Amino acid sequence: MRIKAVIAYDGTGYGGFQRQKNAPTIQEDLEVALDKLTGVPTRIMAAGRTDAGVHAAGQVIAFDTAWAHSLFDLHRGLNALLPEAIAVLTLGVVPDDFHPRYAALRRCYRYGLYLATVRDPFVSRYSLHITHPLLLEPMQVAAQHLVGQHDFAAFGSPPKGENTLREVYQAEWSVEGDSVYFDIAANAFLYRMVRILVGTLLRVGCGALTTADFVEILQNQDRRRAGPAVKAQGLCLRRVVYPNETL
Amino acid sequence: MRIKAVIAYDGTGYGGFQRQKNAPTIQEDLEVALDKLTGVPTRIMAAGRTDAGVHAAGQVIAFDTAWAHSLFDLHRGLNALLPEAIAVLTLGVVPDDFHPRYAALRRCYRYGLYLATVRDPFVSRYSLHITHPLLLEPMQVAAQHLVGQHDFAAFGSPPKGENTLREVYQAEWSVEGDSVYFDIAANAFLYRMVRILVGTLLRVGCGALTTADFVEILQNQDRRRAGPAVKAQGLCLRRVVYPNETL
Repeated sequence: MRIKAVIAYDGTGYGGFQRQKNAPTIQEDLEVALDKLTGVPTRIMAAGRTDAGVHAAGQVIAFDTAWAHSLFDLHRGLNALLPEAIAVLTLGVVPDDFHPRYAALRRCYRYGLYLATVRDPFVSRYSLHITHPLLLEPMQVAAQHLVGQHDFAAFGSPPKGENTLREVYQAEWSVEGDSVYFDIAANAFLYRMVRILVGTLLRVGCGALTTADFVEILQNQDRRRAGPAVKAQGLCLRRVVYPNETL
Repeated sequence: MRIKAVIAYDGTGYGGFQRQKNAPTIQEDLEVALDKLTGVPTRIMAAGRTDAGVHAAGQVIAFDTAWAHSLFDLHRGLNALLPEAIAVLTLGVVPDDFHPRYAALRRCYRYGLYLATVRDPFVSRYSLHITHPLLLEPMQVAAQHLVGQHDFAAFGSPPKGENTLREVYQAEWSVEGDSVYFDIAANAFLYRMVRILVGTLLRVGCGALTTADFVEILQNQDRRRAGPAVKAQGLCLRRVVYPNETL
């Protein structure tokens, strides 16, 4: 049977989701736990391959297993075997053809900033520390221009063989105390797209770019005028949306 | 001149505050940063030697330096050289005889629990995950019995040559969503005292001990009936109080 699981992880210290030779990965830790628990080598599929240092509060994976005990035991067993940085939040049986990447309708990411003169060690692990004031209004106006279907070539590169058209459903900034969040939802993202978008919006926020400049960069697919990708530690994959969700 | 600094750190991955040979320590990282910045080997004193894995939001240190530039530059320079897990929050000149340990009137610690069926990787780094229900009322009643001057021999061992009498000014539980906090303030603490207290109060919380049992353990200095020390990761040194504070 095929199992879908929603997982969360603290990506600090990991080389990203996808297995690789020279760094610990989320995929490896999950597969090692599954192998131990089920006694059978198990490969997992994921909704998105988060980069090194990126966190997840709602990544979705799927795998096939002949597990003969209860789902409760599978859930509890996995959490007992996984390192503290990774947790299986929910878990259930799905149709055999469910693929977490191809079936996904929408991915929701959040990028966190915190504005303070001095670094906070407990917050800086999950957000980007900003020491200068930010002009949030033009950042918000610029972000709104991202909504809709656009060619996002200015803000990232596609996986091999794919184009750079993506549809953004939501892109907005919100403030909670000293923290500022950028929430963006799209059908899919280009490589490093959220981090380059935030890097470019921060240029708007410090007055180096106007919102008109930002729109021009988007429309002209002008990679050279887009900002650099901001640090991975502020990024979190919060949710992946599927059709007819019951799990 | 003597400098007093209030610092915060994420203690995960550190062997504690105090320098030792076989593990990275907060003291070493601070002294290395000071040496680099000032060009002179500098020893620091601290209010408390937090254990391996314990965090601090308001640890206090002091050191002597011949620093000839502004305090602003000293502050900014230290934060630039320190690893992300450590931050200097504030910093100022104090009288030459100020010692952060001996001058301290009161230390305030917080221990964090979170109640959830499934582990949250972002919270579990700073708190203890509890999967069973807790009886908070008897835990609160038991905690109130700690306030005042008592012999706390049941709940920890003293530094060499010291007795086990301590005065507790505050000891209470509070709830915020799924998180439960134990705040305790005292003139000083025995080795592992907060963690053993929490371990014992958790026994009250799951019905294994009554509040009367708890009071008996305290009064009889009954180490054997006290609970085990809970994990270091939930503990945070939040504040150290001094007479006539201006910094």
